Amino acid sequence: MEKTEITWHDHTVSRSDRENLNGHKGCVIWFTGLSGCGKSTVANAVDHVLHQKGVHTFVLDGDNVRHGLNASPSILESYGEDFADRFGLGFAPEDRTENIRRVGAVAELFASAGVVTLVAFVSPYRADRDQVRKRINDSCAGTFLEVYVNAPLEVCEARDPKGLYKKARAGELTGMTGIDAPYEPPLAPEIHLMSGDHSPDELAAVVIAYLSENGFIS
Amino acid sequence: MEKTEITWHDHTVSRSDRENLNGHKGCVIWFTGLSGCGKSTVANAVDHVLHQKGVHTFVLDGDNVRHGLNASPSILESYGEDFADRFGLGFAPEDRTENIRRVGAVAELFASAGVVTLVAFVSPYRADRDQVRKRINDSCAGTFLEVYVNAPLEVCEARDPKGLYKKARAGELTGMTGIDAPYEPPLAPEIHLMSGDHSPDELAAVVIAYLSENGFIS
Repeated sequence: MEKTEITWHDHTVSRSDRENLNGHKGCVIWFTGLSGCGKSTVANAVDHVLHQKGVHTFVLDGDNVRHGLNASPSILESYGEDFADRFGLGFAPEDRTENIRRVGAVAELFASAGVVTLVAFVSPYRADRDQVRKRINDSCAGTFLEVYVNAPLEVCEARDPKGLYKKARAGELTGMTGIDAPYEPPLAPEIHLMSGDHSPDELAAVVIAYLSENGFIS
Repeated sequence: MEKTEITWHDHTVSRSDRENLNGHKGCVIWFTGLSGCGKSTVANAVDHVLHQKGVHTFVLDGDNVRHGLNASPSILESYGEDFADRFGLGFAPEDRTENIRRVGAVAELFASAGVVTLVAFVSPYRADRDQVRKRINDSCAGTFLEVYVNAPLEVCEARDPKGLYKKARAGELTGMTGIDAPYEPPLAPEIHLMSGDHSPDELAAVVIAYLSENGFIS
């Protein structure tokens, strides 16, 4: 056979092949709410329970995204000022939109790898979350689950895990969601958690029960 | 117990927890080379073999990244012109750098989920690939493997799977790597494939042998 006749077939592994290997479907569980509402804590508690059950999971949150994929302009300084200004993300409205767009795209990739993907970002704009919902459900119907982690601002502010509310009240920080920037709650989240009144483990159990009742896990 | 005394512990699942569940380490196998050299085909062939062996894998390439995470300005038009111009990626040098930076960050996330992550992009600039190498190895030493898929330009141009060389020669496309834009080959890739002379399955076997000999798979 001549070299030029070599056939270059693609052996593509499909989403369902990957899901079969994992023993469950991929999906995106999107936790949204004010800073301090408990999104990351509950997402990590759900992750822990699912992992113990042998479910293949991953968590996307500020800890692993804000220093890499969605780095700030200052982190990107080594690439030059123009580059850092263009691609680095701050907290202006368009930066928040791009932050959520990128995270949504990555969550879609993880779900298509058959991973139960837990996403925890304030994601204050309804339109941004709804774009992600549409994209992920277009890719595989019914695989986007929105979890509204709802605690009163006073509770979030009293917890203030990152000290952001204190800074915002002191005028050292602008654009703080809930203080001088809007939070638009989901109109019809799949799961609504009242996180001011319950422990993370209780809230995680609500999410696990939903996944089980709706066939996401067995 | 008062509500305010509820302890909000994080139960974090670690990288090694996820790797233990998967039964192997996570890593990034980065295929670089000219358009038409066979990067995606070989990456998909490797993916297929690994998947058959029960290895948890994923492929990142133009097919699943260029319409989502790294969409062009025209795909992002619905977000408004300024937004699309700022965040959309074309083929200018800084756009290519950002393309590879984002893909590298996502590959790092997949690897930290314990996934053998196959990445196939032209990635023409050595500095961009070396930044990804550094970042991924800083996160977990020895987990970045560069595969130089090396075919002569004439072979790539004869294959021309996307018709890009024809367009570039006709002057309908500028900035085509190998024609009027540079390709900087790796100086010390972990694996060097001569893809003009061998079938994708033969080339995939070389990669699989490397992974096996170096303890990435058993």
